[in-house]
Amino acid sequence: MSAGRPIGVFDSGVGGLTVVAELRRRMPWQDILYFGDTARLPYGNKSPETVLRYSLEIGRFLVKQGISHLVVACNTSSAVALESLDREMPVPVLGMIEPGARAAAAKTRNGRVGLVGTRGTVASGAYPRAIHTLRPDIQVYSQACPLFVPLVEEGWSDGPVALEVAHRYLDPLLAHGIDTLILGCTHYPVLIPVIRQVTGPEVVLLSSAQSAVDALQEMLPKEEIQASASRMGSLRCFVTDAGTHFTEIGERILGEPIGTLMPIEEERLVTP
Amino acid sequence: MSAGRPIGVFDSGVGGLTVVAELRRRMPWQDILYFGDTARLPYGNKSPETVLRYSLEIGRFLVKQGISHLVVACNTSSAVALESLDREMPVPVLGMIEPGARAAAAKTRNGRVGLVGTRGTVASGAYPRAIHTLRPDIQVYSQACPLFVPLVEEGWSDGPVALEVAHRYLDPLLAHGIDTLILGCTHYPVLIPVIRQVTGPEVVLLSSAQSAVDALQEMLPKEEIQASASRMGSLRCFVTDAGTHFTEIGERILGEPIGTLMPIEEERLVTP
Repeated sequence: MSAGRPIGVFDSGVGGLTVVAELRRRMPWQDILYFGDTARLPYGNKSPETVLRYSLEIGRFLVKQGISHLVVACNTSSAVALESLDREMPVPVLGMIEPGARAAAAKTRNGRVGLVGTRGTVASGAYPRAIHTLRPDIQVYSQACPLFVPLVEEGWSDGPVALEVAHRYLDPLLAHGIDTLILGCTHYPVLIPVIRQVTGPEVVLLSSAQSAVDALQEMLPKEEIQASASRMGSLRCFVTDAGTHFTEIGERILGEPIGTLMPIEEERLVTP
Repeated sequence: MSAGRPIGVFDSGVGGLTVVAELRRRMPWQDILYFGDTARLPYGNKSPETVLRYSLEIGRFLVKQGISHLVVACNTSSAVALESLDREMPVPVLGMIEPGARAAAAKTRNGRVGLVGTRGTVASGAYPRAIHTLRPDIQVYSQACPLFVPLVEEGWSDGPVALEVAHRYLDPLLAHGIDTLILGCTHYPVLIPVIRQVTGPEVVLLSSAQSAVDALQEMLPKEEIQASASRMGSLRCFVTDAGTHFTEIGERILGEPIGTLMPIEEERLVTP
């Protein structure tokens, strides 16, 4: 946890950079190592066993690089692998679920919360569980949205197709009278304009990225933050497939150059 | 190539079962080993290097199981890995591109052919290359359709979203006056009703599965086909992630039970 060690952040692909963007905005001095598992993405439709195996491999890899904290910037992985990561990693581990659940429990006025996420995240039941630990009276209505990530990756985050898809997924949640919607996947903030069109202005939209960085800020010692505040931190990105358009989409999310990607063959992850 | 050895068929996931369905219909006596790389799918947006590596791993694995022929029932893999597979495997290898190109060159009357496929297949230029070898006068108009596979896997293969997406991808091809359309991805035959709505009745739709099984039939010795015609062949499926809804979608494609899946950890593929 020394000031000089980078924070490790990982996701199945480029989506976790929404968390990095929030981190850079609020703690620009912080060094960051990012890992995007682009050769094996997406995690959202895969089984818990597979996502757990991939998550542990990446966690071990980042710990070997000397990180101070591990941020699991993937809701699917947070939903199924957080406990194992927390047990096995020698550094503090932060997932997406608990911060999002806390924000939702604090924001809802009518006790009706909507959740959108991948199949894996929704099937795990992790969000309702975390919310009910805080406030058992809240009703959680969940909807898996497997087409949202491909829409973002196709660059069709607005227009008639996105709007039609958003209606199909969100209308049933709105019919339940939700006043708060958890965007339970790090890709989804890109779709906020079209989601807002469907929900109207009254529903509170909660992004994983914001809630998670709130929680991370509480984990970091205050003196460290002040001491480091004068320098600009570095960002280095590992990917398992460097040939995807990671840089293009990533720089759009981050608003800054990503630099040279560091390709990691999965063999290096698999071998103990 | 003895009568007793199974044919090996592989795809990134469940889509290649459209080829198996065609095989079962026309050569029901044939034993088949199917491999779906469900833990690492989809291949369509990944780089040629990654798809090549995965394809060689799977090819070697199936050869070890004693197959007589290897069918690459994935257009993306056929587009980038066929040459290497052909060189490295000790059995005859059949891809999707060459049979599809042959069918298109034979069917088109006005010399204007459309191609739809994944980003990887379209970017490789493999279809236009194969078509121009046969008939340099044909104009090929290509369109990557990254949302088609997620639509099929979401079970939204008809309805307003599928129709809107199909229009967006196909209208530009139709504007070029194509009379023949290659469905250059093994998932796409599932979308034929909605594609037909967009193209109208005049455009010839060519499915990879049909063209490939035509080609395979030519590769098999005639006497073997006749000798084996009385028994019903077995079908066994290996998958890298057994927890996905492979069985559910697969049985819908095949119209027969799939039986117990045989899970293969990627470690077993990676280790030489």
